[in-house]
Amino acid sequence: MLKIGILGSGSGSNMQSIVDAVEAGTLDARVVCVLSDVADAGILARAARHNIPHHYVDPAPFKTKLEGAAEERVIGLLQEYGADTIALAGFMRVVKSGLLQAFPRRVLNIHPSLLPAFPGLAAWKQALTYGVKVTGCTVHFVDEGIDSGPIIIQRSVPILDDDTIETLHARIQVEEHKAYPEALRLLAAGRLRFDGRRVLGT
Amino acid sequence: MLKIGILGSGSGSNMQSIVDAVEAGTLDARVVCVLSDVADAGILARAARHNIPHHYVDPAPFKTKLEGAAEERVIGLLQEYGADTIALAGFMRVVKSGLLQAFPRRVLNIHPSLLPAFPGLAAWKQALTYGVKVTGCTVHFVDEGIDSGPIIIQRSVPILDDDTIETLHARIQVEEHKAYPEALRLLAAGRLRFDGRRVLGT
Repeated sequence: MLKIGILGSGSGSNMQSIVDAVEAGTLDARVVCVLSDVADAGILARAARHNIPHHYVDPAPFKTKLEGAAEERVIGLLQEYGADTIALAGFMRVVKSGLLQAFPRRVLNIHPSLLPAFPGLAAWKQALTYGVKVTGCTVHFVDEGIDSGPIIIQRSVPILDDDTIETLHARIQVEEHKAYPEALRLLAAGRLRFDGRRVLGT
Repeated sequence: MLKIGILGSGSGSNMQSIVDAVEAGTLDARVVCVLSDVADAGILARAARHNIPHHYVDPAPFKTKLEGAAEERVIGLLQEYGADTIALAGFMRVVKSGLLQAFPRRVLNIHPSLLPAFPGLAAWKQALTYGVKVTGCTVHFVDEGIDSGPIIIQRSVPILDDDTIETLHARIQVEEHKAYPEALRLLAAGRLRFDGRRVLGT
């Protein structure tokens, strides 16, 4: 059984999809804690509603990364709650080597595009502006780069002529909420193996 | 009715898909000529079998682009045969502004990945090595960049654990042979319009 620690900065809809899968018995895991770098993030309120231990961790003095005292505090809390798998779920900071080395090949992220296309912020908006006809979402292991780690699952999503950034984002999120539990299910089943940077067993 | 001039360097399987659609009556077009920078390319033999005018154009002195006397000769032949639409079909040279200005927004290409991921050579191999789970093919208008023009159609293809570069390439080609006639069908129907670099009407 996976013991998942979740890090997020926003409303927590991906965290919700993971918690729902656990509660429905379709994912052999427990969410042991939810941590956020945003004091009033919706993800913390969602954790409270599900009686999941949750903490705000002050990220100062950094603006865009998790490092220094905040990184130490996050690692300490994750270890304290016994997490063995870390799921980034809308966590808007770059995680650094401290966290990655504390949980080697056990830090996952979900990204709203078919990586390696459109890494970085607001990937759905990047895709719409570029004019691709197919985008999607990617669950991947986190490495030291930006959205560059080995890919576990991708789900594709069509882009329609009348899409706005809002309608496209919503359609991608529907697939995200299937993809993240599915990737964790594969991890829980011990099926994943590496071949270079390919992840097999999916 | 489109009057299509095709440029290719290889076996001509994409040219075949276009010719088949024309002959089946599902694409309102005529293939007016087939040109190749490779004297013994299969695409020229295929053109001969379908009684389509075809020519080898010596690309010297350039190794990787179509420019200078060869570009002039290609433009001249295309104009002589009355082409109004140019389909690059496995044409292994970068086309330059001369051809693009002679046929503005009427030069199309097909690429074996979901662009903007994996531009350039052997895109299926790039995708397999990177470890994506979804790749595909893209039909796009050609601009002055490499595989960077406005996208008309994309079709996605899954990557399987036991794929080799050969099996993956073959699976992508199946989709290419649907995508290229379909993109030309949309062009022939006059349905395509631009919104920035988005192509609508698809």
